[in-house]
Amino acid sequence: MSNQPPRPATQRLRIPGPTAVPERVRQAIAEQVVNHRGPEFRAILHETFALLKPLFGTTGDILPFAASGTGGMEAAIANIVTQGDRVLVVINGQFGDRFKAIAEAFGAIVDTAVFELGTAPDSAIIAERLAKADYRAVFVTHNESSTGAVADLAAIGAVVREHDALLVVDSVSGLGAMAVNQDQWHLDIVVTASQKALMCPPGIALVSVSAKAWNVVNRVKAARFFWDFRKAKAAADQDEAAFTPAVSLIAGLRVALDMIHAEGLANVFERHRRLATALRAGAEALGMPVFTSAPILSNSVMVLRLPDTLESGRLVNHMYQHYNTVITGARAPALNGKVIRIGTMGSIDAADILTDLHYLERSLADLGRPAQPGAGVAAAAAVLAS
Amino acid sequence: MSNQPPRPATQRLRIPGPTAVPERVRQAIAEQVVNHRGPEFRAILHETFALLKPLFGTTGDILPFAASGTGGMEAAIANIVTQGDRVLVVINGQFGDRFKAIAEAFGAIVDTAVFELGTAPDSAIIAERLAKADYRAVFVTHNESSTGAVADLAAIGAVVREHDALLVVDSVSGLGAMAVNQDQWHLDIVVTASQKALMCPPGIALVSVSAKAWNVVNRVKAARFFWDFRKAKAAADQDEAAFTPAVSLIAGLRVALDMIHAEGLANVFERHRRLATALRAGAEALGMPVFTSAPILSNSVMVLRLPDTLESGRLVNHMYQHYNTVITGARAPALNGKVIRIGTMGSIDAADILTDLHYLERSLADLGRPAQPGAGVAAAAAVLAS
Repeated sequence: MSNQPPRPATQRLRIPGPTAVPERVRQAIAEQVVNHRGPEFRAILHETFALLKPLFGTTGDILPFAASGTGGMEAAIANIVTQGDRVLVVINGQFGDRFKAIAEAFGAIVDTAVFELGTAPDSAIIAERLAKADYRAVFVTHNESSTGAVADLAAIGAVVREHDALLVVDSVSGLGAMAVNQDQWHLDIVVTASQKALMCPPGIALVSVSAKAWNVVNRVKAARFFWDFRKAKAAADQDEAAFTPAVSLIAGLRVALDMIHAEGLANVFERHRRLATALRAGAEALGMPVFTSAPILSNSVMVLRLPDTLESGRLVNHMYQHYNTVITGARAPALNGKVIRIGTMGSIDAADILTDLHYLERSLADLGRPAQPGAGVAAAAAVLAS
Repeated sequence: MSNQPPRPATQRLRIPGPTAVPERVRQAIAEQVVNHRGPEFRAILHETFALLKPLFGTTGDILPFAASGTGGMEAAIANIVTQGDRVLVVINGQFGDRFKAIAEAFGAIVDTAVFELGTAPDSAIIAERLAKADYRAVFVTHNESSTGAVADLAAIGAVVREHDALLVVDSVSGLGAMAVNQDQWHLDIVVTASQKALMCPPGIALVSVSAKAWNVVNRVKAARFFWDFRKAKAAADQDEAAFTPAVSLIAGLRVALDMIHAEGLANVFERHRRLATALRAGAEALGMPVFTSAPILSNSVMVLRLPDTLESGRLVNHMYQHYNTVITGARAPALNGKVIRIGTMGSIDAADILTDLHYLERSLADLGRPAQPGAGVAAAAAVLAS
């Protein structure tokens, strides 16, 4: 650790969410609070709904909740699952387990379709399972941020639409970084949250609801009040929230969505793809390949294998202590110690990726596992220039 | 409307919550987001818990949720009520009705103890009801902000503690403006939220839990995941939240609590009492007495009767259009058109009260119902000087 540079004064928040929030968004959040049922806030909410729809790929209803992403997942379940309903939870990582736990808490009989950690769900197997039993809903994680595997939602949607079951998608760490085409792909409920690709602090959950889902939501006798989609829709139709919304965070979200649309949604996705590809190339050159073997790689969360002899906690801690860069370790218990995870979503650019790789390279050297100097940033730069 | 002054450029947010947020708090909220499981945020959460306990009057657990106040009410119910449990909801206004609706959504058999709108709950009648049936819980609204009546929580606590029933208190619009002594008064679950006397934007619900309540929470098989107090406590014991917390809002709450303790909690309560008393005196001098006849008057929410011939919507709208001052009308349907409601909690001082009265006086004159010029501010000033 000779020639150790001083620790950077400004923290680099590089976890897979919450992500760093642009200054313009933070300024909007710092504005004085307004009446949540007055014309100023109704105008903000009206614009926010309109700006969100292209990100969900829907012309349908988008409902906001003052909650985190898990609250959005619970809202989806609370509105369609009643005691004794049978549901199918697709599990290929940690967040599938969460859907299972919530559905069980709400009294569902939960069948699971489990896929190996790091792989994507196989729509043919989901089709087989749907042929064998009647399900109220199928739960899928779009971007499994514990592994970096992305589900082929178009393929799964084509399967589930042939059945009465609803397709519920957790895209908390996907939406805004990668395309979601709810209407075209026949997704029934899509859940996301403010603190990932949407470049806001945590505290807003967003849920979109298809016509097929409304038929269930309006019919079932479920235990719901705060999460009640019917109340949320009645309010949203008036550009209000059913219960006091997180007005400051919504004001920030409106600005963040303005920024996304000013850049252009296709350009935002391409930026994520390019930066993620660059980080993958750079990390591989440092001896840290991506963990997942899925055909569709995450562009929002990098899950990188470490050399066998390096425990991830040491690298995470070193990046924090010496380079004031906050990355994180495994989210799935089976990967504890074996992977690091870095966010590549939201308000990031080439500087973030190159700096990540620079500090990773230095940390590996500091920890006695030097890679070829400059190999990481060079590989990334080649991608960025291509 | 001769001599009409120009509309003030800055909006005056004078509704009973969300309340105006001090600049220092808004600056803290605008700081860059930090890792919600890192040492910086754990330090913030640790201090926040410690600073909150005197406001709840408890040495027990306080649990934060990324949600609005209604979410906190739902959390209280989700953790103690199971299908078929009998509960007693004390109703003396709109927010008692909300407790009833949530409890019913969670499958409770709800008995009600209804008191006339504008009155406070009678603890002797609650005692009679508790003698006749076994209840899982009794639900009481501390500060019924639809009427301005305050419940005598000490008296009700003394009654309920003789039974197995838990005493659940909605103090969303009370706590921080008026004393809550949870431990001394034997309150089992107290719910509040960030956007009232705590001087923050909406988006944080706070719930405190007594030892008697934990015995129930840990025992019952309730449908809960996001609201699960056991998960929240396990995380809080590590200065974390079970699910991604609203990190920016929590950072603001910490600063708001610093401000409250710097002023001194007793001084904060006395400021609220004095300002509320002054506004009541001034409003009465303008012909708008308080609606409630309760022995304990709210110091946080003024509910004022209007002259019979003046519809509240006209006055609310005039205050907004001409004086950029946002007050509001009735919250209980039976009072529609008959009352206005003004917040007197959080970050307010004598200037707010005098300005409210000045604009109310001008609006009454504008609307053809002039009071004696200066009568309102003079009556308020006399209280403030006493």
